[in-house]
Amino acid sequence: MANPPIVKPIDYADASPEVRAVYDDIMATRKTDWINNFWKVLAHDPAQLKRVWEGLKAVMAPGALDPLTKELIYVAVSATNGCEYCSYSHTAAARAKGMSEAMLMELLAVVGMANETNRLANGLRPPVDTAFLPKG
Amino acid sequence: MANPPIVKPIDYADASPEVRAVYDDIMATRKTDWINNFWKVLAHDPAQLKRVWEGLKAVMAPGALDPLTKELIYVAVSATNGCEYCSYSHTAAARAKGMSEAMLMELLAVVGMANETNRLANGLRPPVDTAFLPKG
Amino acid sequence: MANPPIVKPIDYADASPEVRAVYDDIMATRKTDWINNFWKVLAHDPAQLKRVWEGLKAVMAPGALDPLTKELIYVAVSATNGCEYCSYSHTAAARAKGMSEAMLMELLAVVGMANETNRLANGLRPPVDTAFLPKG
Amino acid sequence: MANPPIVKPIDYADASPEVRAVYDDIMATRKTDWINNFWKVLAHDPAQLKRVWEGLKAVMAPGALDPLTKELIYVAVSATNGCEYCSYSHTAAARAKGMSEAMLMELLAVVGMANETNRLANGLRPPVDTAFLPKG
Amino acid sequence: MANPPIVKPIDYADASPEVRAVYDDIMATRKTDWINNFWKVLAHDPAQLKRVWEGLKAVMAPGALDPLTKELIYVAVSATNGCEYCSYSHTAAARAKGMSEAMLMELLAVVGMANETNRLANGLRPPVDTAFLPKG
Amino acid sequence: MANPPIVKPIDYADASPEVRAVYDDIMATRKTDWINNFWKVLAHDPAQLKRVWEGLKAVMAPGALDPLTKELIYVAVSATNGCEYCSYSHTAAARAKGMSEAMLMELLAVVGMANETNRLANGLRPPVDTAFLPKG
Repeated sequence: MANPPIVKPIDYADASPEVRAVYDDIMATRKTDWINNFWKVLAHDPAQLKRVWEGLKAVMAPGALDPLTKELIYVAVSATNGCEYCSYSHTAAARAKGMSEAMLMELLAVVGMANETNRLANGLRPPVDTAFLPKG
Repeated sequence: MANPPIVKPIDYADASPEVRAVYDDIMATRKTDWINNFWKVLAHDPAQLKRVWEGLKAVMAPGALDPLTKELIYVAVSATNGCEYCSYSHTAAARAKGMSEAMLMELLAVVGMANETNRLANGLRPPVDTAFLPKG
Repeated sequence: MANPPIVKPIDYADASPEVRAVYDDIMATRKTDWINNFWKVLAHDPAQLKRVWEGLKAVMAPGALDPLTKELIYVAVSATNGCEYCSYSHTAAARAKGMSEAMLMELLAVVGMANETNRLANGLRPPVDTAFLPKG
Repeated sequence: MANPPIVKPIDYADASPEVRAVYDDIMATRKTDWINNFWKVLAHDPAQLKRVWEGLKAVMAPGALDPLTKELIYVAVSATNGCEYCSYSHTAAARAKGMSEAMLMELLAVVGMANETNRLANGLRPPVDTAFLPKG
Repeated sequence: MANPPIVKPIDYADASPEVRAVYDDIMATRKTDWINNFWKVLAHDPAQLKRVWEGLKAVMAPGALDPLTKELIYVAVSATNGCEYCSYSHTAAARAKGMSEAMLMELLAVVGMANETNRLANGLRPPVDTAFLPKG
Repeated sequence: MANPPIVKPIDYADASPEVRAVYDDIMATRKTDWINNFWKVLAHDPAQLKRVWEGLKAVMAPGALDPLTKELIYVAVSATNGCEYCSYSHTAAARAKGMSEAMLMELLAVVGMANETNRLANGLRPPVDTAFLPKG
């Protein structure tokens, strides 16, 4: 049995109107009828809940990058940081947006390789090549 | 002036036949006529140079994910880890593969948001929702 | 059920006099009658147990910063690093020193924001402004 | 000479009205007459500039924690993550809010100790003590 | 009960000939008759399974460093990154190669100390001493 | 030119008797006639200087692991964390203790591989195999 959360998740039934308004927007935006535990613990600070949710909604919306690509990036960062909750929740979100198993495995291969070469560069400290420097 | 590299970059002219063979494959694969410093420092261990290059070539090749998406993931991991060389080299590589400035800025917005919510989850420890758990 | 610890916790009853002396000092300093598992696993190396405990006692004592502020910083680092044991133990310690739930939520908001902007700076590499540089 | 930034800082004189509005709010809030490079590179994405600035302004405002304590936490996270720009800018900000040199040194002592014990816990995996678990 | 893996482990009986060939080489190299779960989840991408295994086999083979020293380094990196699976599997591997409990505890003392002083250096930014710079 | 340190290094000539005593012990222990910048910035907090130095001296002394192996572990952690100062100083220290270039390259190969497989495990979350669990 996993350890209990550090603050207790707040269910819709027990939430203040301010929190319910965010929960309603999460469900409407995602076309679902439930709220995942990340938001339920964040709800102990309604202003933070609203700020983080609205930031996430804006950042993950279609733009120069499509939503699936953005979700893949989220999975990549979560694996790099070793966030267990985030790996489960964002892998599920990416699958819901169309990520196949082959895509997941290739994504993690890139993540693994980048983590490897990042440390080779950190340990050997090659100078940045002039060709890679942005032009003024 | 940046600090000098921890091992001296090995130029093509000074390289062993074994190292030159890898350098030749890098240039042929990338259709360029120069070798960046990352490989030149790694060349102090020719077997490692060959293994890492061949791994990278395989991992970054088109597959279930296209090469630009893979390069974006590389940039995301490098920013998360704070690898300076890697941020410069992979941002340049992504631009060469078609990443616009708008795409770079959106990519980093996702990276920033993921790093934020990863820590909120780490600090509050919500249980993974049953709906996110893979089916046996 | 969580995985068992990598080395078995050493209870007071089974501890050597050298280890018991540290356990006694921990309990006297904290005014408690039990030892938490972190110290019980570290006790496999009595010299390390003594060094880490005495270091921690010195560092966390009141000084230019008060003990609660120091404990908040400990929680912030533990969430950033994703250390599960440390998030539970130091959140509990901070609560015991007077951290309210509102303080915990604000603390994590700062941690989240700092982790976000750290990566935006890592990915975009702005030069350090002259005004921020210490005067010689 | 440090490497140039990955995107060019946008000065006030060259900024769009949308960006200038954020710059104006930064200067008014901080009671300064200049904009630091972090915001000038983020300005390549005006919507992100506005979102991150407004988030930061809200998070760092006085609340259950005072602004200096929040700035100390920011410095702690930045040192843990190894973000160079952030260490310089937030140490300067903390000094401006009243952090003495003694406070900085004690803060880093806590950061160092937390990073040490986080890894001892990660390597030895002690079970979370029942007394540390939040009550349901 | 721990959360289930994100992709289901593939047992030998259910594996393709390509995957079985890697499994056979793992067992022959390690002189064991079973495959650990890391490889069983990686087997969802047979080419990646083969690449990572062959890389690991090459890197961990005796060379300028002996296999036990290499395994100690693996444990050190895994504790620094907070990878739970890796801490258990590589601590077990190091024990099988002769790591005593005293060696494990000393290893983690070095890991803890390095993580501490890394952050003191990150937070105070001392210039690299000329004597430490490699000669051109 | 690198950015100046966040606090000014304190030279022997300007140091208090308390700081000089630590400096003297560092030089006597290392059989050198100079102090590197890490200690000179830490000297702004003489008690911390003394505690960190004495901890480091104890941890790096010969024991179940020899001093060169301990220095290799320090280099591995510093590359993983991306600490620039630490990579230069501890690579130099390891060389002074006998690390050859071949050993450095193999060490970094292990570091790279461990950072790669740590993320594959974080992203796929295989259960820890029963055979790896310590016996009660």
